[in-house]
Amino acid sequence: MEKLVIGVDLGGTFIKAGVVNNSGEILIEDSIPTEAEKGPEHVVEQISKIVLKLAQNLKNGHILGTGIGAPGQVDPQGGVKYPPNFPGWTVVYLAKEVEEKTGIKTVVDNDANVAAIGEAKFGAGKEYPDFIMVTLGTGIGGGIIIGGKIYRGPTGGAGEIGHVSINFEGPKCNCGNYGCVEAYVGQKYLSAWVAKELEKNPKSKIVELVNGDLSKIEPYIISLAAEQGDEFAINVWKRAGFYVGVMLASVMNLFDIKVAIVGGGVAKAGKVLFDAMNETVKLRALKPIAEKAIVIPAQLGNRAGILGAGALAFEELT
Amino acid sequence: MEKLVIGVDLGGTFIKAGVVNNSGEILIEDSIPTEAEKGPEHVVEQISKIVLKLAQNLKNGHILGTGIGAPGQVDPQGGVKYPPNFPGWTVVYLAKEVEEKTGIKTVVDNDANVAAIGEAKFGAGKEYPDFIMVTLGTGIGGGIIIGGKIYRGPTGGAGEIGHVSINFEGPKCNCGNYGCVEAYVGQKYLSAWVAKELEKNPKSKIVELVNGDLSKIEPYIISLAAEQGDEFAINVWKRAGFYVGVMLASVMNLFDIKVAIVGGGVAKAGKVLFDAMNETVKLRALKPIAEKAIVIPAQLGNRAGILGAGALAFEELT
Repeated sequence: MEKLVIGVDLGGTFIKAGVVNNSGEILIEDSIPTEAEKGPEHVVEQISKIVLKLAQNLKNGHILGTGIGAPGQVDPQGGVKYPPNFPGWTVVYLAKEVEEKTGIKTVVDNDANVAAIGEAKFGAGKEYPDFIMVTLGTGIGGGIIIGGKIYRGPTGGAGEIGHVSINFEGPKCNCGNYGCVEAYVGQKYLSAWVAKELEKNPKSKIVELVNGDLSKIEPYIISLAAEQGDEFAINVWKRAGFYVGVMLASVMNLFDIKVAIVGGGVAKAGKVLFDAMNETVKLRALKPIAEKAIVIPAQLGNRAGILGAGALAFEELT
Repeated sequence: MEKLVIGVDLGGTFIKAGVVNNSGEILIEDSIPTEAEKGPEHVVEQISKIVLKLAQNLKNGHILGTGIGAPGQVDPQGGVKYPPNFPGWTVVYLAKEVEEKTGIKTVVDNDANVAAIGEAKFGAGKEYPDFIMVTLGTGIGGGIIIGGKIYRGPTGGAGEIGHVSINFEGPKCNCGNYGCVEAYVGQKYLSAWVAKELEKNPKSKIVELVNGDLSKIEPYIISLAAEQGDEFAINVWKRAGFYVGVMLASVMNLFDIKVAIVGGGVAKAGKVLFDAMNETVKLRALKPIAEKAIVIPAQLGNRAGILGAGALAFEELT
């Protein structure tokens, strides 16, 4: 009988879940509203509901367990702490509670770690025992895979690559520090910076694409303009790739790791972005690293949440 | 019978060695010129000579093995690669060769790792299972101790904290990157920067202490002036501490480590430097880290080389 797991991607609006096999195929998939505003107990109910529904729909195969990818911090005991946009949460032991309600062994980790574990088992990281996972989205998430395993650090907080300061005099970051790479390339920061630069570049396609309303700038708009050959937009991605590359060179030097896998919404900017990251890492990492350094795209795309949570379950429960 | 090891500190000019017990006491100590210019084989001879002399002088106790701290890179197979100021070296398997000549089990690691292992076993790191070791000297060396063990990385090159770029537009570093913390606080960079700044601060005591010859500025001169209350010199150490603190905040965030231990020549600058490092880390690391972050002085001082190599031998050979 095929060994299967359930992967749960806990989002602020929807909970997405699927039955995943050991080859990284999603056999059944479903979703349910999170209704986070109804509080933690309700969210536990919703997760348990979708997990049980998937388990019941299964005709063949044996469910080994459930993996959950959760926003916010997750402590080594499985406590999910203050996930953003989940009102009323302090610390919730999500795995334990879902396990009690479903009778299925359950494990939990944070979004960023789950993305890294997913790429390691099913995606671009399959061939690389050691890599740095970068998720370019609202924030810059990270995960460090060493010898095929996620490096969590002594208290589960490791891998915060978004908060590597690449310029001590740089823009202020939400975390309180200055010049964090997230404060350059995080979605809102990037859009705000582009809006400001557009004052000097009013002829950019971006202005046209947002009908002059610069508050509507988002990374996909910048990508659209770049695809249409807009020089300014292309240079935005070159610059963003440079910033991420500067951070990666430092992180590669620290961990002695030569591979970075980059996913997330912003990463869809594609070749220009990846060329800039690769070029910067080759110029800036220490020689023995730089000679072999590569920055490659993640492969799991919008299945990353479910597949990553599934990979976590395979990793922890088998 | 007491269990003992021999710790060897391979320097460019002298080889220092000592018999070390498990409490971190040096029972006998000796040194011999390196004579690196005579080539690798001669250096192996010199190390073997001093190791055998120490072993023979020992009245009681059993030698478990020899640990060597070597400059340059050391690969996971124990190959010592291109140590600076050792002409004619490519890769030398120092431990293997010394072991063959002495009949005593021998292990080798690089200077920076050995310093970290030494502080972990015998020094300021005894109480901390996880810490970042920083050695402020000609370069900025580093070592990451996780769960009491050194983190070497997949190919033995990890812990290069000196080459974390704290400003992508910063001064060019010898490694080819820009704004590495070493390019701000490494001995020569720091002295050159101070010499330049003195043009605007000609009344600083530093000028008097070097009799107007700014090429003679060294960290201990800056410390001397600071101790005498020289405002400019005090501000140099504040600024240096700030740079190291910026780097440490990023590295602490990445590894989820809350303790840094700082040693090396420049660290002798003392309270002003440590206050600045602590203050910066508290302001700049992520909240859960910053709340408990401390930067403390190393304890082994000029015994760090021998004791660290001794600790390496205890670690690897018992």
